[in-house]
This record gives sequence, structure tokens and C-alpha cells, in this order.
Amino acid sequence: MTQVIVLNGGSSSGKSGIARCLQAVLPDPWLALGTDTLVEAMPASIQTSDGGIAFAPDGEVTVGPEFRALEAAWLAGIAAMARAGARVVVDEVFLGGADSQQRWRKALGELRVLWVGVRCDAAVAAGREVARGDRITGMAASQAELVHRGVAYDLEVDTTHTESMECARTIAAHVE
Amino acid sequence: MTQVIVLNGGSSSGKSGIARCLQAVLPDPWLALGTDTLVEAMPASIQTSDGGIAFAPDGEVTVGPEFRALEAAWLAGIAAMARAGARVVVDEVFLGGADSQQRWRKALGELRVLWVGVRCDAAVAAGREVARGDRITGMAASQAELVHRGVAYDLEVDTTHTESMECARTIAAHVE
Amino acid sequence: MTQVIVLNGGSSSGKSGIARCLQAVLPDPWLALGTDTLVEAMPASIQTSDGGIAFAPDGEVTVGPEFRALEAAWLAGIAAMARAGARVVVDEVFLGGADSQQRWRKALGELRVLWVGVRCDAAVAAGREVARGDRITGMAASQAELVHRGVAYDLEVDTTHTESMECARTIAAHVE
Amino acid sequence: MTQVIVLNGGSSSGKSGIARCLQAVLPDPWLALGTDTLVEAMPASIQTSDGGIAFAPDGEVTVGPEFRALEAAWLAGIAAMARAGARVVVDEVFLGGADSQQRWRKALGELRVLWVGVRCDAAVAAGREVARGDRITGMAASQAELVHRGVAYDLEVDTTHTESMECARTIAAHVE
Repeated sequence: MTQVIVLNGGSSSGKSGIARCLQAVLPDPWLALGTDTLVEAMPASIQTSDGGIAFAPDGEVTVGPEFRALEAAWLAGIAAMARAGARVVVDEVFLGGADSQQRWRKALGELRVLWVGVRCDAAVAAGREVARGDRITGMAASQAELVHRGVAYDLEVDTTHTESMECARTIAAHVE
Repeated sequence: MTQVIVLNGGSSSGKSGIARCLQAVLPDPWLALGTDTLVEAMPASIQTSDGGIAFAPDGEVTVGPEFRALEAAWLAGIAAMARAGARVVVDEVFLGGADSQQRWRKALGELRVLWVGVRCDAAVAAGREVARGDRITGMAASQAELVHRGVAYDLEVDTTHTESMECARTIAAHVE
Repeated sequence: MTQVIVLNGGSSSGKSGIARCLQAVLPDPWLALGTDTLVEAMPASIQTSDGGIAFAPDGEVTVGPEFRALEAAWLAGIAAMARAGARVVVDEVFLGGADSQQRWRKALGELRVLWVGVRCDAAVAAGREVARGDRITGMAASQAELVHRGVAYDLEVDTTHTESMECARTIAAHVE
Repeated sequence: MTQVIVLNGGSSSGKSGIARCLQAVLPDPWLALGTDTLVEAMPASIQTSDGGIAFAPDGEVTVGPEFRALEAAWLAGIAAMARAGARVVVDEVFLGGADSQQRWRKALGELRVLWVGVRCDAAVAAGREVARGDRITGMAASQAELVHRGVAYDLEVDTTHTESMECARTIAAHVE
């Protein structure tokens, strides 16, 4: 039985929409958690501190040791939720590509995970970023390729020409 | 010179995304206002009062005289903003079809308006409603055709297979 | 009959809470609109353009000619809504003190306006800014006194030790 | 060393504001998580399903077995985050009073916890609920006493006449 679905993709690639659709089409109730939840849970000061998270005007995102420490505990917590019986869809941005996946693999251990790459053409994702009215732009373009480097997937979906709901149905068909 | 762009379409048809993209691609600064802004500005009680606005569990939306009175003043206000020199993109849901357009025509008077129909296949819009995580669903499907009944447009776009940004560029090409 | 209530106060002084309470306690339905609505309606680029609006790291807010032009049209629009019969509570930050009030006076013309100063001790407002989790801090402190300079009120309330609802009741007692 | 701070109080009692202030005044970075995060992470359907969570028009909240199962896993996850080194402020509504606390005690096990009761006069909390513009009202009043029944605290704060920041400083003085 699949216990965790990890959706990895750049900003504005459509991950959170797919997560919501997965919650609607999968027969059991799943929790949807992700990078945005974690950033929201951190102190506001993490966005100005040296070891925190920084959003450059061009959309580049960099994270430091303080952020990493909280993130590691967050990963351990998500894993524990899954071990305790909750099924969890995780909506992630692997800024470190293969290294990020390795951190997740270590945290999730023996849990049965479905690794899903969520791709979207960079220009299309950049357009969607504008459509959402985000004040900081550039993340979609800068992350579109970066987050997939060296990452191994069970399954990839591409939202460039496919709706979130259809991607969710494709993913759901791979959930045991 | 186009002074007002009215985008009319059902819930989850992609109007607000197009409005944000229009603001990004049009050379002058435009204000983006819409039904959501108006509903947000109204008293919370308007959603429970008999003469206000009601969202049925199946997504049907009905409005009463109290809502209509505030809406009429809102239309007059939008028109006045345009007369005072602001260019305005309006993001609307013509629940009354041609009657709604007539109310807008009357309010906008001599202003130069670009009327744009924003269409989206009902099933696709319903999927996007789920992807957005809206707690109330059904509005997308129930409004998809309804809001276009008897409405005359200068231009129609369809977001079923076309991105908000591309729709915005098409519309922008018609702005004088 | 009072047609417009203008609430002027610094960031985190409690204006929008008072506006919501006024909507609840006043017998007629009132629209609540304000600076936040206007900023949200503007293009995202207005926050990075030279003539737009800028939020300094210390909380100072400066606005340029592009912002002022859209704001002037916005004021004309609010006035038109009130002339068309909507009663409107405006939630404002008079960055220019008396000059800001003068712009509103001119826009509102013959309308019957209740001018309300919303005061809050700077340190208390700064604490509430932190409690709201705002990423940009400092606005509360920098605006607490500034926005009241030279402004004439019919009535002042102070949220330092008084709840929004009680302030709203005091104001409502002055509404004709 | 305190590893978890549990803030328990009714809706609109000011818990989340205190949590944000705690994050600002405590020297280490703390994660702030709570009931709202959990409800947001659940499927939208949990709010309409029989075993989920229901918000009655009068503000009463009831939860069923599906909700409880996900909540139990969530508690295990929070505990795991703390064991992995993150310090966590939890913002909770003990609908079941002492039973709710017992569930948390069991989940948190050997972790060092500071139990904080956040009280607020029911009428004042109800006023703040209106000020926030919540569409559903009544939760503040119905929960004000209920959530504290039989719960044991290390410390209680009362936001009726005390700011979030001052409450946070009081709590911070008890953090080891």
C-alpha cells in the first residue's frame, strides 16, 4: 500500500493543484502538506536571517543551516505521520535535486513511496506565476529544470498541456 | 482608447488569471477589480440574509435586492474610476446573462469598453475548481454556459486549451 | 444621513477590524473598502516601479505619481458609489496627513462624511503587527503618529485599550 | 529544555497571535503549527463527510472518526518533529477538554512540554471573531469555556485585557 506520494516540481508547475485533485479522487482521506506549509510555520525572521531562506529578486531561492535544521525535523515528522497511519501527499521543491531526494529517502526509510516528477515548460510556468499575481516572479523559470536534476521517479506528469485533474488520475492509477 | 475591459465568465474559467496577465502585458497600469472584490467588501451578513447572496450546496448562486442595490452602486463607482482616468479590467460573472450586461452597459455609458467572453469547458473548469481547493464546488459547472446567454462580445477567449497569458496577449491586441 | 465613514489610522491600528464590526452593528448594509483593496487591485509591478509604491525594510512606505494617479481615480470611484446610494466605510492610511485628507475632501465633495481617527499606541501596534505574522514589520511604528498630522476628525477612537467592537459602537452612535 | 509549547484556547482567543509573537521573542527558531494547519491539510470533503468535521451555523464544531484518525497521525508527527530537534509551538482547540489533553500527552510522551491555557472573555472573543470578518460566527462564544474543562496547565494567560506580545513574553519567561 502506498503510504506517501512525493510530488516534486518547480514553483507554479501545478503541484498543489494536483495534490488537491488527488485528495478528491483517491478513495481514502489523504493529508496534503508541503514546502509552503513548512515556510509558513517558520518564524517570519527566517526570511531575513543569514541562515534562513532568501528569495532573490530574480526568483532564485537559497536556504541556510537554520532552515535545513527545521526542514530535517519536518521530514521526520511527515514520516512519522505516515507510519502512524495517515496517507500523505507531499508537495515539494527539490532545490538541491538529487541531494534533496536523498534527504527524503533517508527520512521516509521503509515507507512505501510513490515518487512523482511534476514537469511544466518553463515559459508556461512563468506565465502561470504572473496569472497567480505573485509579487515575486522568476521562481517558476529558475526552478523548472533545476529541481529535477538527478532525481529518480516512479512516474512523471507534465502539466504544460494536461490539467491537474487528469494528472491526478494518472498518478492515482499508480497508487496501491 | 479602451477604458474598461470587461471579462465575463463562469467561476474557475480563468478570468482573474487573465486579468493579472493583462496587467503585466499592457503598457499602462490598469486596476483589476471584480465580483470577488465586491463580495469581500460586503457585510458578512449578506451571505445569510434573505436579500443577499446565497451559495447553494450544488454551486448555484442566487442574489437578492440588497445585493443588487450595493452592486448597482459598485458599477457606478467602477464607471467613475474609468471616467477619472484609471483604466480598469473588470472580472465578472454575469449570473443574469444579457440582463447583467445591460446593467453594465447602462453604468458604463459612453466609456469605451472591450467586452470579452471567457469560456472554459464545464468539465475542465470543474476540475480546476477542485484543484484550487474551494470548499464549495459546483459553481464552475453550473455557471459555464449560463453566464454567456445572450451576451454580446467583442472578443472571446477559451481557456480550455489556452494559457491565461496567451489569452491576455490576444485580448491586449484588441486594446486601443 | 451619513454616507461615508472614513477611518484613518496607521498600519495595525485596528481599522479593518473596526470596519467589519461597523458592518455588523449598523442596521443598513455598508461596503467596506480601503487602501488594501486598492493596492491589491493595482498591477504587481506597481510595487517595483519607480513611480509606484515602495515598502522599505524599516516599514516606511513611499508612493509615486503612478500610484497617485490610480489613487485619485479610486477616490472618485468611492465617491460615486456613495452618491449612487451605497454607504461606504473607508479604511485609510493618510501617509500625507492633512494633504491626504484634503484629497479625500475634494473627492467626496458634498457627501456627508464622518471623519474618524483610529489611534493606537505605537508600541502596541508594533506588537500586533508581529502577532499578525506580517513579513514586513515597522509600518505600525512608523505610521502611528505620522498619519494623524494636521488631520481634523469628528471623532477619535483609541484601540490601545479598547476592543474593535466597542470602538465600532462608539462610532455607530455618531452615524446619522 | 522545553521542546513543545501547547497553547490551548477557544477560537478567536488569540492563540495564533501569541504563537507568532513567541516565534519573534524566543531566541531559537520555533515552528508554529496548529489545528488550522491540520484542517487545511485535510481533503475538502472532510468538511462534508459524516466522519469528518462539521461547523454548525451556531458555531458548534463536531468531529468524527475519519477526522480523529488523521489527527492522531498528525499528533504523532508533531511529536516526531520535536524529537528530531525542532522546537514547536502548537496552537490547539481542545474540543474534548481533558480528553484532548490526554491524547496530546500520550503522543508527546517524554518530551518536555509547557502547557498554556489561553483564556479570553467569551463576549470579547465573539467581538474579535466579528472583527476578523469570519463568515461563520459563534465558535468563539461556544468554545470559550468548553476547551478548558478539566485541562491542567503550567501557565495561563488571558488576552481579554492583555496584548498577544505581553502574553508571549510571560510564556517565554517559562520556557527553559
